[in-house]
Amino acid sequence: MILETALRLFREKGYDRTTMRAIAREAGVSTGNAYYYFGSKEHLVQGFYDRIAAEHQAAVRPVLDRERELEPRLAGVFQAWLDVAEPYHEFAAQFFKNAADPDSPLSPFSPESEPAREAAIDVHRETLAGSTAKVAPELRGPVPEMMWLSQMGLVLYWVFDRSEGRVRTRRLADRSARLTARGVSLSRFRLLRPLVRDVHELFTDFLPGMTHGKPAATGDAAPPKE
Amino acid sequence: MILETALRLFREKGYDRTTMRAIAREAGVSTGNAYYYFGSKEHLVQGFYDRIAAEHQAAVRPVLDRERELEPRLAGVFQAWLDVAEPYHEFAAQFFKNAADPDSPLSPFSPESEPAREAAIDVHRETLAGSTAKVAPELRGPVPEMMWLSQMGLVLYWVFDRSEGRVRTRRLADRSARLTARGVSLSRFRLLRPLVRDVHELFTDFLPGMTHGKPAATGDAAPPKE
Repeated sequence: MILETALRLFREKGYDRTTMRAIAREAGVSTGNAYYYFGSKEHLVQGFYDRIAAEHQAAVRPVLDRERELEPRLAGVFQAWLDVAEPYHEFAAQFFKNAADPDSPLSPFSPESEPAREAAIDVHRETLAGSTAKVAPELRGPVPEMMWLSQMGLVLYWVFDRSEGRVRTRRLADRSARLTARGVSLSRFRLLRPLVRDVHELFTDFLPGMTHGKPAATGDAAPPKE
Repeated sequence: MILETALRLFREKGYDRTTMRAIAREAGVSTGNAYYYFGSKEHLVQGFYDRIAAEHQAAVRPVLDRERELEPRLAGVFQAWLDVAEPYHEFAAQFFKNAADPDSPLSPFSPESEPAREAAIDVHRETLAGSTAKVAPELRGPVPEMMWLSQMGLVLYWVFDRSEGRVRTRRLADRSARLTARGVSLSRFRLLRPLVRDVHELFTDFLPGMTHGKPAATGDAAPPKE
């Protein structure tokens, strides 16, 4: 209830201009109470991320129980995300500038977002592991994270998509699923594995929260590995 | 002069809150005069993009005249961009939300940004063509556009980079150059070419300005090709 009120106020007045006091007042609770449940505005956003992740985990069940091929599994996972996120589209467009900064705690790549991010990557771990796709053992860790990164690309596109029913993003989701599945299938060739690993390493070295609790990013990134 | 004044005001007061009238007054010209040279605020930003592109074209000359291998050529092109753009970093961080929307005329992917974009892609065409890298004939068009897209990824990272001298982005530039050069070198394998082509097609179908004057994007994107 506090969370719903906060999301509505963020949408109406903007994240920066909404105070915890205003959220508490609108939700009909004391300010102390609001702070008790959510330590700050930032925690409210993390609560929102956690909720989206949980709703997504529920929404993917039918497709992951039904499909065995990687491409339809991934397409279903993407489409389910679009279903779950649709009610928040207006909020997301308005909120985007706060989340786009990788150093912000509100970034999907931040250490603070790790619980929501891990829940989201878990979906992709299951998407891959439950599929017929063959992946080299050394890539079984990185590939689901790359699949999640492609979902983040999709989210970026979705934020700005004004088409009716997000039909453009829905088409992009199907195309991305096909391409990603093809990329995964090509990764069985030994020739390509170093490239996949290096791309993954680049993301983990340069996105602050991607290093599993060891952010490399206060003013600096890990030195390049030769 | 009008352009410098405009960039300063955009930085100080924000793009949305700066009027052409205020720009003209600060620049010491009549409002009519400002409109004569730049039809709108948006044209001022396009003028800024054109200038960055022209400065970049000049700044890459030494490295493109000196290096023959693709990796150092591309690394030099990225580093030169960071040199040229540095004075505008503060403006870019503030301006980002206007340019991030692919449907905005101020997006680097918009039809309106085509002249600046083509100038930027030309740098990558020369970077590839003048290198020792072997590329299949069918990929000679797409590959420089993909190289430019990797530069756009770098720009996105740079916008939010608060490290001293953008040292993080400078390291990312070298890593990206190495990865991109390796990807280009792998594209000589016949096996991979369809994937490169499909990734490129995905970008041209879904980014409004990438279709060379035939934007597919008013409310819809091109249907997926089977």
